[in-house]
Amino acid sequence: MKKGVLYLIPTVLAEGTAEKIISTQVKEVILNTRYFLVENLRTARRYISSLKLGISIGDLDFQVLDKNSTEGQMAQLMKPLWEGHDIGVLSEAGCPGIADPGSLGVAYAHTKGIQVVPLSGPSSMFLALMASGFNGQSFAFHGYLPIDKKERATAIRELEKESLRKNRSQIFMETPFRNNQLLQDLKQHLHPDTLLCIAKNLTAKDETILTKTAQSWKKTEIDLHKIPTVFLIYASKI
Amino acid sequence: MKKGVLYLIPTVLAEGTAEKIISTQVKEVILNTRYFLVENLRTARRYISSLKLGISIGDLDFQVLDKNSTEGQMAQLMKPLWEGHDIGVLSEAGCPGIADPGSLGVAYAHTKGIQVVPLSGPSSMFLALMASGFNGQSFAFHGYLPIDKKERATAIRELEKESLRKNRSQIFMETPFRNNQLLQDLKQHLHPDTLLCIAKNLTAKDETILTKTAQSWKKTEIDLHKIPTVFLIYASKI
Repeated sequence: MKKGVLYLIPTVLAEGTAEKIISTQVKEVILNTRYFLVENLRTARRYISSLKLGISIGDLDFQVLDKNSTEGQMAQLMKPLWEGHDIGVLSEAGCPGIADPGSLGVAYAHTKGIQVVPLSGPSSMFLALMASGFNGQSFAFHGYLPIDKKERATAIRELEKESLRKNRSQIFMETPFRNNQLLQDLKQHLHPDTLLCIAKNLTAKDETILTKTAQSWKKTEIDLHKIPTVFLIYASKI
Repeated sequence: MKKGVLYLIPTVLAEGTAEKIISTQVKEVILNTRYFLVENLRTARRYISSLKLGISIGDLDFQVLDKNSTEGQMAQLMKPLWEGHDIGVLSEAGCPGIADPGSLGVAYAHTKGIQVVPLSGPSSMFLALMASGFNGQSFAFHGYLPIDKKERATAIRELEKESLRKNRSQIFMETPFRNNQLLQDLKQHLHPDTLLCIAKNLTAKDETILTKTAQSWKKTEIDLHKIPTVFLIYASKI
């Protein structure tokens, strides 16, 4: 029997944006898929409902693939593929496989010769990089910086040094309730001329993307508390 | 007068995919924009025509923003913004600002307090990362590797070492007519257990995304000549 396909399905970053931002392709794939591996059940159900495709959510089969999932569980979670059914992977926000646990399922699929099809959609990290004005020929994403004050200061300085040496844009994030603290740390530890881009609430009505020198950020009031934010630094012009 | 907005507008990666992959938001922005900064005039005109928005291409104002553009030209190119007109930036393929010259315009906009709005769309590099199954919490994009045989071998080994040390996915590309040569070099210089993902013709009908060990690639026939391809390696499990 022909095996099913593993679709990587993007979701929205901000509520109420599905109609404008989610493509026809994504809607068609969701319409033709019954089995879903999702990071968060509630978010996934709400997202599919919001697309107004006439799907009855109760007819769908949702299994959780989150940070507690293990490699050992993949065979069971992927079972519908062997019966010829497609599976859709849905992250809590943005694109599966980027800074989320979806890659565990994808890695498994490749070892079994399952076809993996990624669908285009919004990614906060990627939109932030586009809009930063920084070098898009060389960049690195680092996930979360260390929480410990001293380790974090060292990490910030290391990222800055590497940016300068390799002409590289550095991208990172923080748990939203610690965003303001991270901004303070960046202001304190970055060279005054290093460029810092802050991209908050991407795709939402109050989306804000600003690139300024660390020095200039010291004179700027901005509240990032509990707001999804991507941070980028670029030091090559110091 | 209110200044215009600089929109970063994604295009398709493969012909004939606009209808399914390009979002309503992108179409609406194009419909409301008269001034465009484009990497390639012909591609840009053809793309906008393909969206069938009822726009008369002759009414639009296209200026080139490509690899030969300089910082000094930005003030002139951005002039419509000061007159209150929005400007759309269009890359030759995928998303402006990522491995293309669009970032020059974006950087200028930030220094002048111009609002920059990135729109979601297909990016080959990003789709490849999603579908590789590699670590999406830490990754780096390196653009093109060196052409010189010896320098390239060193670069491949360095990327592999860094992937192992930092648990990082490494992404890079090649000029399409040299893809087969790069694949040979990767087979030759990577550790047999290092994972190599090859993503060719993304979003096209014959899209192929395969992740295998370097050893296993030695036994695989694949032709990448003149086909847009993204290469990724991940060595953390050696």
